[in-house]
Amino acid sequence: MARPQTDIDAGRELLLNQVEELVRKRGSADIAMNELAAAAGMSPSNLYRFFESKEALLEAVAEKWFADKIAIMEEVTASDLPVRDKLFAFFARRFVVLNARFNADPELFKSYCELGEQYIEVIRGYVDLGDHYLAMIIAEAMDEGYFGELSIDEALSLINQMVSPYCMPDALIHIGPKLSEAKLSQIIDTIFIGLGHGYEAKAQTPHIKIVS
Amino acid sequence: MARPQTDIDAGRELLLNQVEELVRKRGSADIAMNELAAAAGMSPSNLYRFFESKEALLEAVAEKWFADKIAIMEEVTASDLPVRDKLFAFFARRFVVLNARFNADPELFKSYCELGEQYIEVIRGYVDLGDHYLAMIIAEAMDEGYFGELSIDEALSLINQMVSPYCMPDALIHIGPKLSEAKLSQIIDTIFIGLGHGYEAKAQTPHIKIVS
Repeated sequence: MARPQTDIDAGRELLLNQVEELVRKRGSADIAMNELAAAAGMSPSNLYRFFESKEALLEAVAEKWFADKIAIMEEVTASDLPVRDKLFAFFARRFVVLNARFNADPELFKSYCELGEQYIEVIRGYVDLGDHYLAMIIAEAMDEGYFGELSIDEALSLINQMVSPYCMPDALIHIGPKLSEAKLSQIIDTIFIGLGHGYEAKAQTPHIKIVS
Repeated sequence: MARPQTDIDAGRELLLNQVEELVRKRGSADIAMNELAAAAGMSPSNLYRFFESKEALLEAVAEKWFADKIAIMEEVTASDLPVRDKLFAFFARRFVVLNARFNADPELFKSYCELGEQYIEVIRGYVDLGDHYLAMIIAEAMDEGYFGELSIDEALSLINQMVSPYCMPDALIHIGPKLSEAKLSQIIDTIFIGLGHGYEAKAQTPHIKIVS
């Protein structure tokens, strides 16, 4: 990120709010720089002082969308929660934020999701960052003996798939009322107890007993 | 379903192929009955002999899309596979079909998904039917002692969520290359070992050992 430039930063913030107004009014239809300049009452060349390209604008929109989620991931990963609770919080706290944003304005939320699909390359860095933090939590769980013989990458992929309705904004739109923190908690429990413990092995040695 | 009427059935099949051609050409944009009649070289009033309304047409499109999946669900549910393999086959065989259809023509697949979103009420009956068959497999698993104290509905909701990337056509579009039968199999194992076995109980008695 460039060094702080108060005027520029304030102008960017105003323009990002203007983008949100445009998305709210028109949905996810492509936003032209000229149009944004007109909506903000400035000349196109002035607009380029704040965002040097449409890519820079879209990256700023994504940065704003993901800021609170990144803060949550950093905070949870650095916390001293027990690892099971850490994995739960990692997904649950972001789910709560996403859910609140969906409920505040479902149409706007859908439009942002569609925008994200159109500019998937802008999103990808944030998905990778999420995987980076998740891998840290998985490594911690493995140090405590969880997930059997799976590699970090294998566990990461399987966990991402099993909790995907709680991460995918699309899922909120389609099955929102079926999602809950209580169910997510049960899924996390299932992952900690079952993941990487091969049903085959269990089938061969069927007697599992709690010994202390 | 009405009693078989060979001519009518043959005409419907031709018209459904015509619908597919239209979807392939134009994407999911709404298909008017007039337009379908023109594409099929028949008068609108003749078209209504085959499909009495646009709803009837859309239901026939959905019936065609879901036919092979319903056959799989019926076959797997009625089979004498061990219950773990039954649950795996229930999802895996449909995933294979869905994946083949996606790979055959990704754009057409996306258009059908968008159509499905536009006419979600047409889809809902098929989702409910899937839940009906899944509930039968879950009941069988519970008879064998799986899933702890969960109710059938609770287990059904949690299982649907944990395997959702393998059921949701959208997921194929977004994360297709990350999905595999091998991973689905590991998720099914995780469900059979972990679901309904409350981490809390385990946390109080942390030493679980395979004793035979």
